[in-house]
Amino acid sequence: MTGIGPIHILRLAGLPMIGPDSDLCVEIAGAMERSAIALQDGDIVVVAQKIVSKAEGRKRALNDYVPSPAARDLAGTVNKDARLVEAVLSESRAVIRAVPNVLIVEHKLGHIMANAGIDQSNVEADGADGETILLLPEDPDASARALRDRLRPHGVERIGVVISDSFGRPWRIGTTGIAIGVAGVPAVVDRRGEQDLFGRVMQVTEVGFADAVAAAACLAMGEGAEAIPVAIVRGLDWQAGVHDASDGLRDPERDLFR
Amino acid sequence: MTGIGPIHILRLAGLPMIGPDSDLCVEIAGAMERSAIALQDGDIVVVAQKIVSKAEGRKRALNDYVPSPAARDLAGTVNKDARLVEAVLSESRAVIRAVPNVLIVEHKLGHIMANAGIDQSNVEADGADGETILLLPEDPDASARALRDRLRPHGVERIGVVISDSFGRPWRIGTTGIAIGVAGVPAVVDRRGEQDLFGRVMQVTEVGFADAVAAAACLAMGEGAEAIPVAIVRGLDWQAGVHDASDGLRDPERDLFR
Repeated sequence: MTGIGPIHILRLAGLPMIGPDSDLCVEIAGAMERSAIALQDGDIVVVAQKIVSKAEGRKRALNDYVPSPAARDLAGTVNKDARLVEAVLSESRAVIRAVPNVLIVEHKLGHIMANAGIDQSNVEADGADGETILLLPEDPDASARALRDRLRPHGVERIGVVISDSFGRPWRIGTTGIAIGVAGVPAVVDRRGEQDLFGRVMQVTEVGFADAVAAAACLAMGEGAEAIPVAIVRGLDWQAGVHDASDGLRDPERDLFR
Repeated sequence: MTGIGPIHILRLAGLPMIGPDSDLCVEIAGAMERSAIALQDGDIVVVAQKIVSKAEGRKRALNDYVPSPAARDLAGTVNKDARLVEAVLSESRAVIRAVPNVLIVEHKLGHIMANAGIDQSNVEADGADGETILLLPEDPDASARALRDRLRPHGVERIGVVISDSFGRPWRIGTTGIAIGVAGVPAVVDRRGEQDLFGRVMQVTEVGFADAVAAAACLAMGEGAEAIPVAIVRGLDWQAGVHDASDGLRDPERDLFR
């Protein structure tokens, strides 16, 4: 997983506002060209979920959600807009925790996250539609694969794409980046059975590779008005292959924190 | 938190084996000099917990732990060596989950982690002592502060030190780096109240800054025989201040996953 040289995280400046009429790949390629960034063997392009969702037309009007009785009940518990709760439930498989101001669910994609990853920051209002929300991409692995197929320079196999989102965490304050979609790069690197420095077989050695890449890139991206939604992580050593973000999800039967 | 230039993660090669007679600061400074790395304003030096613990003499012989009846009971549940379980309990405040092969505790420092962070990989055996284990540093924030005070070049205020460890996570497979000690850098950056791109006040915007720095650095460090225990993260924008790693720990009363 490691090499010997430094790792670089390049922030991609100069992307225009992304909307449902944007070709995200063309926009990223154009911004790279303007920044004189040419993808190299081993580069991992990390793309914030927000612009993927926007390009895929995942913006919704809050008014389009008609709360079910269950959503109304839950909205009372968590002290949130019942339409938003209806939207969260429609994107989820299960409610994991619901207390005032906190609604943690298992998203249909399998990620355990607050509000099913539905975003209200940095979503421009659509005039008469009233408040808008942004859903996760329908299939972030497919989104990542499509970007990888088109961004990968001819003859360069080892290009990765990670779709990142910011997740809160149990026990710890503050969000970090998480990989909700991957292409080319592994979600998890399994090092079990390898020997450590002293020849002892290593114990817990599955590494959350794509999540760590997302965390590093999100650190570079920022979250506020200065947000940069694409970063290129260069200099990591990894094996290209066919992977899904769900490879990094624990089997519910073996999870102790549901 | 973000700037405009790239972020670099420099891997510090050439550190000797660290033991209780090592002056870790001298060793790190020497390796930096040999690698022609001079610390710059904004640099964050990330140091793996293992070498901090070794330099602070936190290696213990497993035989020195005499299991209590409670440790023996728990060892049966989790299917681990009762001496190891005694060591884990002696480093912990509370058992969070105990099932076969998994023992998750609240460490005395407040971190919720497997086996109280006790390490058996990359710990050289001490001859007749039999198996050895490595405890976390007694006070990782103090360890970080000591390193920062001595590594910081004269007149450069914004140098940070993070002591990192690899943590498993609920719901997700694979470890990522976590900050168990900080000096100079904030554990959490609070962006609540700032405006997003569209002038809307941001919602969840506490960022796990030091944990993300640790995750990025651990990606560069590796875990196996090729491990590099020090990395320098360069190019992030942050405010220097007095912080503790415990600033990043959620109040137990407000935690939903204990």
